[in-house]
Amino acid sequence: MDLDSLAQHCGEWLRGTGPDSDIVMSSRIRLARNLAEFPFPNRADTAAKSEIETLISERMKALSQRQKLNYIRVSDLNALDRQFLVERQLISRELSEGSGPRGVGISDEENISVMINEEDHVRMQVIHSGFALDDCWAEINRVDDLLEHEISFAFDDRLGYLTACPTNVGTGIRVSVMLHLPGLVLTKDIQKVFQALQKLRLAVRGLYGEGSQAMGDFYQISNQVTLGRSEEDLIKTIKEVIPSILKYERRARETLLLENREGLHDQIARAFGILSSAQTITTEETLHLLSSVRMGVNLGLIDELQIPAINELLILTQPAHLQKVRKKPLESAERNIARASLLRQRLTAREHETN
Amino acid sequence: MDLDSLAQHCGEWLRGTGPDSDIVMSSRIRLARNLAEFPFPNRADTAAKSEIETLISERMKALSQRQKLNYIRVSDLNALDRQFLVERQLISRELSEGSGPRGVGISDEENISVMINEEDHVRMQVIHSGFALDDCWAEINRVDDLLEHEISFAFDDRLGYLTACPTNVGTGIRVSVMLHLPGLVLTKDIQKVFQALQKLRLAVRGLYGEGSQAMGDFYQISNQVTLGRSEEDLIKTIKEVIPSILKYERRARETLLLENREGLHDQIARAFGILSSAQTITTEETLHLLSSVRMGVNLGLIDELQIPAINELLILTQPAHLQKVRKKPLESAERNIARASLLRQRLTAREHETN
Repeated sequence: MDLDSLAQHCGEWLRGTGPDSDIVMSSRIRLARNLAEFPFPNRADTAAKSEIETLISERMKALSQRQKLNYIRVSDLNALDRQFLVERQLISRELSEGSGPRGVGISDEENISVMINEEDHVRMQVIHSGFALDDCWAEINRVDDLLEHEISFAFDDRLGYLTACPTNVGTGIRVSVMLHLPGLVLTKDIQKVFQALQKLRLAVRGLYGEGSQAMGDFYQISNQVTLGRSEEDLIKTIKEVIPSILKYERRARETLLLENREGLHDQIARAFGILSSAQTITTEETLHLLSSVRMGVNLGLIDELQIPAINELLILTQPAHLQKVRKKPLESAERNIARASLLRQRLTAREHETN
Repeated sequence: MDLDSLAQHCGEWLRGTGPDSDIVMSSRIRLARNLAEFPFPNRADTAAKSEIETLISERMKALSQRQKLNYIRVSDLNALDRQFLVERQLISRELSEGSGPRGVGISDEENISVMINEEDHVRMQVIHSGFALDDCWAEINRVDDLLEHEISFAFDDRLGYLTACPTNVGTGIRVSVMLHLPGLVLTKDIQKVFQALQKLRLAVRGLYGEGSQAMGDFYQISNQVTLGRSEEDLIKTIKEVIPSILKYERRARETLLLENREGLHDQIARAFGILSSAQTITTEETLHLLSSVRMGVNLGLIDELQIPAINELLILTQPAHLQKVRKKPLESAERNIARASLLRQRLTAREHETN
């Protein structure tokens, strides 16, 4: 799998073709698994990690007829390439910043990724565009079964799957949905959503998972509990709560339009104007403005642009992506210039023609 | 003279064709004169003012062969039309907001205007594009001579021309130059200019003269003294100081480009982006952003636009102009929408084509 060619486009989950993709960016399920006969990665030495990596990556190859996974040795990559995979949501920050032998198997469409030697020996994830948890669940179940056929995972009859961190013990599942909630942020109702989710023991995180700040009105909703409830039950909790958030967000947008259409249109149009003309721009401001523009497209206030193009820009304007496209390391100030240039090129018809 | 047709374009002094018009918006000279046999306007009753108005406007007509002036009875105009003439710099705020019979004679090109019953019985002004005080002086001298041929002005051998306010006694002259100094504002050197001008007893004012705030980096420099020095001498003082301010402003722009070309370009490009996309915008923000764009055009950082177009927008986006163009009174919020619409129409090629 060639990272340079990956940098030119985006995975399936960003195409914005899934259900409710005006608000739901993506759905994701990941499972944590460990080999019974090895210490957890945080206790394993390099030799053991190497053995684990070889074992699992070999098994991945073995099942290539039923599920092809392109294997990338993350421990061989430089910091830029690792960051690049984090930005594409194919590996976690933990795997990127870890030490010792580790890697990831990625499907061609980038929907499936299987990390080796992250916090657990195996972390597999399936990600899809829009609100599509059933698809994610069906697919990850299949991948899990395929792997389990080859590998014996640590499992306790009473506790379930054993994991390095007790918060993952049991099902080892994390079900998450990435939502774009600019309306609720503008009406200041977003805190109410957070409170309701907390009562359901669901976590809210930013664009890049655990510890990351919510930027550009993107929020990841996921389960905190993994023990004592079935996978289906945990998925059901999230599946049931999301539609009310969607309804709430859509109502917020309607209210904003009703109460101050001109003001909302102005904010959105200016965001588009700045993105199309800036000569230097940070990641944070880009996310913030793209968020406004994304809502504007969904509300029919901007017609120059489609949702997939915006979703793609959310990823392509990230630091490592910019450097992969330019094929050279760029300092922060240079990245801000490259980012502005990419945005102008993609957003203005005029520059499109001349470029 | 039809005010509605005036609203569609701008006078000669805004064409930006005069010398140094990258920095000097306009040069202006006005003379204050009074009739010997009448009390000053602030002491005159309606009957006296009416007599003054009739007398002077009749004399204006008499000299129409040598200098055609279109006479407008300002006291017959509604508030919107009066404001409109203020925005075009054809009458002063004082004349607009005054009471009793009063009016103004305006040349076709709008370079010459002669106000009747302002603070003084006669206030004549000549305004030209760019740094052109000699032209202004030659022209206003001619107009003054023509009028003086018809009318006997109050003159004292020791004091000179007598005026309602002692600060105008003597020559009755105000020489002023409107400068666009965004570079010195950005480098924060503008205060030094103000201090230097103060020592020369020159006044600094905003876009709309006395009492108006400096907006959009536009500053009007004018003499404060009118007594004890000849007109030529007063003009000379300003003519001599302006070139050093121009040099200082040009150096400030060069420094900004040298030290942070990308940052300056970014600020200018964003200003253009916002002006081209906003759905609602205030006069103040418009002036502020047009100021950036104006500097950008002069520095060759923006090529979609020419200086005369920007100068024109500075006037056409003013409240009364917007209402004259739309041919109806508009509330502040409606004006902000109309202003944004006008800006988009004038600044974006796309909207140009479809409108």
